[in-house]
Amino acid sequence: MVDKNMVLEALRNVLDPEIGRSIVDLNMVRDITVDDGNVTVKIALTVAHCPLAKTLQTDAENAVRKLGDVRSVKVDTTTMTRKELEDLKLKLQSSATPVSSPKNGGKVGPGIERLGRRGIRSIIAIISGKGGVGKSFVTSALASELRRRGYEVGVLDADLTGPSIAKVLGVAGKPHKGPNGGIVPLRTQSGIKVMSINLVLDDPSMPVIWRGPIVNSVIRQLYWDVDWGELHYLLVDLPPGTSDAPLTVFQSLPLDGVVVVSSPQELASMIVSKAVNMAKKMDAPILGLVENMSYLKCPGCSETINIFGEPKGEKLALSLELPFLGGIPLDPSVARLSDQGRIEEYSSSTIAGIVDELRTRAAKQLEQLTQGLPIAWSIEPAR
Amino acid sequence: MVDKNMVLEALRNVLDPEIGRSIVDLNMVRDITVDDGNVTVKIALTVAHCPLAKTLQTDAENAVRKLGDVRSVKVDTTTMTRKELEDLKLKLQSSATPVSSPKNGGKVGPGIERLGRRGIRSIIAIISGKGGVGKSFVTSALASELRRRGYEVGVLDADLTGPSIAKVLGVAGKPHKGPNGGIVPLRTQSGIKVMSINLVLDDPSMPVIWRGPIVNSVIRQLYWDVDWGELHYLLVDLPPGTSDAPLTVFQSLPLDGVVVVSSPQELASMIVSKAVNMAKKMDAPILGLVENMSYLKCPGCSETINIFGEPKGEKLALSLELPFLGGIPLDPSVARLSDQGRIEEYSSSTIAGIVDELRTRAAKQLEQLTQGLPIAWSIEPAR
Repeated sequence: MVDKNMVLEALRNVLDPEIGRSIVDLNMVRDITVDDGNVTVKIALTVAHCPLAKTLQTDAENAVRKLGDVRSVKVDTTTMTRKELEDLKLKLQSSATPVSSPKNGGKVGPGIERLGRRGIRSIIAIISGKGGVGKSFVTSALASELRRRGYEVGVLDADLTGPSIAKVLGVAGKPHKGPNGGIVPLRTQSGIKVMSINLVLDDPSMPVIWRGPIVNSVIRQLYWDVDWGELHYLLVDLPPGTSDAPLTVFQSLPLDGVVVVSSPQELASMIVSKAVNMAKKMDAPILGLVENMSYLKCPGCSETINIFGEPKGEKLALSLELPFLGGIPLDPSVARLSDQGRIEEYSSSTIAGIVDELRTRAAKQLEQLTQGLPIAWSIEPAR
Repeated sequence: MVDKNMVLEALRNVLDPEIGRSIVDLNMVRDITVDDGNVTVKIALTVAHCPLAKTLQTDAENAVRKLGDVRSVKVDTTTMTRKELEDLKLKLQSSATPVSSPKNGGKVGPGIERLGRRGIRSIIAIISGKGGVGKSFVTSALASELRRRGYEVGVLDADLTGPSIAKVLGVAGKPHKGPNGGIVPLRTQSGIKVMSINLVLDDPSMPVIWRGPIVNSVIRQLYWDVDWGELHYLLVDLPPGTSDAPLTVFQSLPLDGVVVVSSPQELASMIVSKAVNMAKKMDAPILGLVENMSYLKCPGCSETINIFGEPKGEKLALSLELPFLGGIPLDPSVARLSDQGRIEEYSSSTIAGIVDELRTRAAKQLEQLTQGLPIAWSIEPAR
């Protein structure tokens, strides 16, 4: 039969969704009772009304349920005392190593300086090399899933000539300057911060006919002159190609990870390989590859139609020596939700899986960050 | 009942597929016989084994058949005498006006010179602004259809960072320098001349990580340093976006027309509008808009699936004040043929219609060309 110690051991694998350490090590697990297979656990949150509390509760419940012989699990939350919190802060600060790797600072090319990260914990670029495989969809779906789990999320649309993010996420209007002089990004319904060149243009159907140097400086501005505030994740939607705009993102932003998007066309594989090889040359850490538009289920007869050929994401990932993050089927609802600016309503298990992967990665990287303290400790509750 | 004069009048509407004038005016129609609704016509070709003879025969047959009361049509060909040909040459040369419009020469921007057209009659760019809507597919399908009709066709892949043309058209190998010092483009199975950066790279999966100025100079080289020879049509496949590469094509090449490709997604419409507005700003003549991936017919139950939303190309063309060139359904065979380098085997009525439109346009423009003489008069028979 399950006992207290077994529950504690199971909870040891549950990470605080922001701090990225075991909740047992963080001294957050308080009372465990086990009565004939009925388990109750009390977890002390670092702040009351922590937006990530629900994610933590779910993770803890799932961990205990996996033990077997468990009839029911109940996870309650309480809040740390001021004293306990101060102790934890000191402990975390002393273990956080200042950033000193050359990857995150210094000159990276002639005349190009890598920008800092300020209050942003993880910066993830979504790339594909090829257009039309669904970078903007993957970016906005990832942002939505992260937001659903309570994280502070921003999306930077680095595609200046084909900006899709504002439309897909349903934000419109002009951003204005905030009290600090920075541009305040717009917020989606669920609270994702968005910045895109299309929000600045008077007419979104007018092109920006800019050569490279202007493109580069505008991308840097969209990152640096914007008051992103404290974010757990900034997702950067890259334009197709391997020329100015992607190059500037790779050189200027302190990227923590890159998600590669492909489609089942061999043609796409070839061009996606180019983008992957670019990311490797730029020493950007690649989290893995996701295949979009893998297949379509006919809504009429449920037949599987391989519109763009047999799914081959797994094989492609293997040949590029990348983790395969999963395939996402073609779904007419994606185009509809995108066109209606309601992509936040979309969810899929593949996207949820990528978010799990991002969380694990972020946890591993947290020790390298200078600011190791949870964002929830410093910001107002999310809207 | 149909008579000789009616047949002659019907043939007046048939244009020589290269010279772009009525075959009656060109004195190419010789013997017409009408016997109880059975029509025979003899057409004198300007050169024996003219690669365009078949197109001409089909056009003449169709024109006569339209008269009604026609039981059968037989179109034979013969060849002009040397004397007749010399007379025709003189007549054409005297009516050809030298090019003097500023659009086709001179400075077009700081440090940018528009290049000449040498032996190329019509240069058509295929644009979309958005990636993944099928520019390369439309480009290569148009080239294949033009080639089927006997034209000399070249395809310049101006997408340096995501080059698809060589793969789709099934050419591989390295181009070498010809006797004139120009690079000799590779030829497809049917004889289309192809030039793409991927033919120059040692490994097609390696990216070209080039900033704008290099991109620009390479595109100019792919056009100017290549020995295209005499061509009826050079199709230029543009990369997505409205930055360096498209800008260079618009500024450097003497474009005769632009074909715009869209998809049914509203998102695509918005970005395609940007590209159209760019082309308008650059004074490029837009031939019209074609919608790709309009819908899919399920191979299982024949249900029409609007994967990317309701087709809206016609409405989009109207709002952009462009002719609508038609819609092309999604077809799994396109991805298969593209991946196998066999797109030359694909044909569709929409593509054929666009080719008709190109031919009419080319005929109208021919009088502005300095070189008004048919290419067939000067080149070796196509392979």
